[in-house]
Amino acid sequence: MHRIDEALVRKNLLRLASIGRDESGAVNRVFGSDFINEEREETIRYFEECGMTTSVDAAGNVHGYYRPAGPMADEILLGSHLDSVKAGGMFDGTAGLVAAAECVRLLAEARYPSLFNIHVIAANGEEGNELGGTFGSRAMMGLLPLDDENFLKKAEKYGYSLEQLKEAKMDTSHCRGYLELHIEQGNRLNREKKDVGIVTGIVGLQRYHITVEGRSNHAGTTMMEERQDALVKAAGIITLADRLIRRYGHHMVATIGEIHVFPNVPTVIPGKVDMVLEVRGLDKDLIEEYVADLSGRICTEGGISISNMVKKDPVTCDARFMEVLEKTCISDDISFAPMSSGATHDGNSMAKKMPIAMIFVPSKDGLSHCREEWTDFDQLAKGIQALYDTLRNLIR
Amino acid sequence: MHRIDEALVRKNLLRLASIGRDESGAVNRVFGSDFINEEREETIRYFEECGMTTSVDAAGNVHGYYRPAGPMADEILLGSHLDSVKAGGMFDGTAGLVAAAECVRLLAEARYPSLFNIHVIAANGEEGNELGGTFGSRAMMGLLPLDDENFLKKAEKYGYSLEQLKEAKMDTSHCRGYLELHIEQGNRLNREKKDVGIVTGIVGLQRYHITVEGRSNHAGTTMMEERQDALVKAAGIITLADRLIRRYGHHMVATIGEIHVFPNVPTVIPGKVDMVLEVRGLDKDLIEEYVADLSGRICTEGGISISNMVKKDPVTCDARFMEVLEKTCISDDISFAPMSSGATHDGNSMAKKMPIAMIFVPSKDGLSHCREEWTDFDQLAKGIQALYDTLRNLIR
Repeated sequence: MHRIDEALVRKNLLRLASIGRDESGAVNRVFGSDFINEEREETIRYFEECGMTTSVDAAGNVHGYYRPAGPMADEILLGSHLDSVKAGGMFDGTAGLVAAAECVRLLAEARYPSLFNIHVIAANGEEGNELGGTFGSRAMMGLLPLDDENFLKKAEKYGYSLEQLKEAKMDTSHCRGYLELHIEQGNRLNREKKDVGIVTGIVGLQRYHITVEGRSNHAGTTMMEERQDALVKAAGIITLADRLIRRYGHHMVATIGEIHVFPNVPTVIPGKVDMVLEVRGLDKDLIEEYVADLSGRICTEGGISISNMVKKDPVTCDARFMEVLEKTCISDDISFAPMSSGATHDGNSMAKKMPIAMIFVPSKDGLSHCREEWTDFDQLAKGIQALYDTLRNLIR
Repeated sequence: MHRIDEALVRKNLLRLASIGRDESGAVNRVFGSDFINEEREETIRYFEECGMTTSVDAAGNVHGYYRPAGPMADEILLGSHLDSVKAGGMFDGTAGLVAAAECVRLLAEARYPSLFNIHVIAANGEEGNELGGTFGSRAMMGLLPLDDENFLKKAEKYGYSLEQLKEAKMDTSHCRGYLELHIEQGNRLNREKKDVGIVTGIVGLQRYHITVEGRSNHAGTTMMEERQDALVKAAGIITLADRLIRRYGHHMVATIGEIHVFPNVPTVIPGKVDMVLEVRGLDKDLIEEYVADLSGRICTEGGISISNMVKKDPVTCDARFMEVLEKTCISDDISFAPMSSGATHDGNSMAKKMPIAMIFVPSKDGLSHCREEWTDFDQLAKGIQALYDTLRNLIR
């Protein structure tokens, strides 16, 4: 009674994670791909097996409803996301969907008396994508930039009209809060040998487009002193961006993860480089101080420009939810650490409309967004147990 | 009589250069593309208009024959190449095809008495490509690595069987030499205000594959001190490769023109970088000294490897051809500079079997392999005149 079944967790995690998984073991269930449609169908089947009715909204999010408290009751939201990064892992997002569904399965089987209904969300496009990350949850919370022509044009490419994006906005008046289980994606729980992390807040994120202009020319006939090699200039910026961020210490990170070189052939001196710089931290002002410092140093030369693409403010988790989580862990004898999240989650969107909380489970070696991403199933089941018991404490 | 017609040069240059030219003005007539087939057809038509019979060999090279000296006579080869680099210019290769064809047209119109036949080659795949540059001329000269399984597999992808590549090899016993007009692709003729360059030799080229291994991980949750960012390591190598080559002075150049980052998304720390380093110089030993120096510095860290992909030795142009070229220029009142070629040409292949010579015409601002590549038509016509009059001196 009231025990999360590790075998079911394992079976259903592997079931959802297998979609878009390639021979190397990497998951490529990226936003807009056919794999997302497959995952959506499989998630609907799974949610219905767990005792939920389901629907899909106009932004491609799956909704599962378990309504023990009757049609007029308020609801608690659980969930995570459908998509993975390119060449990502099996647990990111999937672990949270399984956690939410298995909680509902157990509540339904136990016919646990509840003051609230449960609403499980499998969000679309949480990972960074052309429409910005947390696409699905921003659509539900009414946070998409629907007055931005450029955004609408890109959304159209993925099959989303303005009408649909408006329609995807949820009525949140009955929502009492959002709880998500997620893998940590960092190494702290492992290092401190804790069962779960209780998230206190989510770091803010800013993304910048850096363009470096040089001059394309023949790689054999153009002497070194006559060159304007955009990649050599870009290399200096990559080195500097990495060196400067280290002055800011813990919980500030900067990454240049995407780079495009033109024309990118061995016989031609690179004429242009486009890069994306991403900076994350709990303090928005420090992020901006870092970017201003970097910009000041690199934009002294001509042909280098830096422009903001994304700004997401830090988020604070709900104090009452955190308190119930903590008490539940203590009474369940589950060890925990309070910690911030270095990654953005759908909770960033939900937090604009309701209280949120998150539980982290350990990531082996702190690896995530890669095929080596792993959480032992007993650890995952323990985290889901903490979520389930917290939920029981919240809804009784 | 015996005057190269600038209007015809202009018309036919624009005609051949228009194939594969995009809206931006860049030419994308890359090896293996449909544009190459189109260019081949147009070149055949053009050569036949100039009085040649034509054929296409099994490696996709076009051959034009003008045989005033009868079927048993030796031949002089002229020519250049059909293909461009990605996002290249209008004159690279095309200028040499027009030069050769217009020389034949004028010889034929003038019924100039000749001891030799003329054989014009429009070579396939001269620019760097998956089968290695100078593909077509290496096929003709029997220089392809036909015992390399890996090469044959790649060739198969482009539709070339082992049988065909063997068949493409020419009988060179009747070949007295190869002459090519080409754009300089550097800035020296402009700077020294010379009409043409008489090429003394072609620099050697070596290409290396550099692989940098790091560890892919989440760009938000992995603290700076826990990272193994392959792009940050690669940036250091790019900077070092550029700095070190400058110690070697004139006519040694090194370029990292191609780079691939995995997985190349903003939210993931780069786990792997593949790059191509190309080094050129007139002295093979100095090239290898530079590569050894660089390797010694970068391979001290784990996860970095460097391996040779291509080695092409320097080539010396034929002394007698150079002498005739020089005397012709003097008597034509065409100013000239002796110079080496920083670029590889089909002459590298031909030189293994026969004497070669090359004439350079000025490149505006030294630009090449880019859409801004330009040679004024009066300068091009002057270069073709030098080639034509040299040819008359060689064949009479």
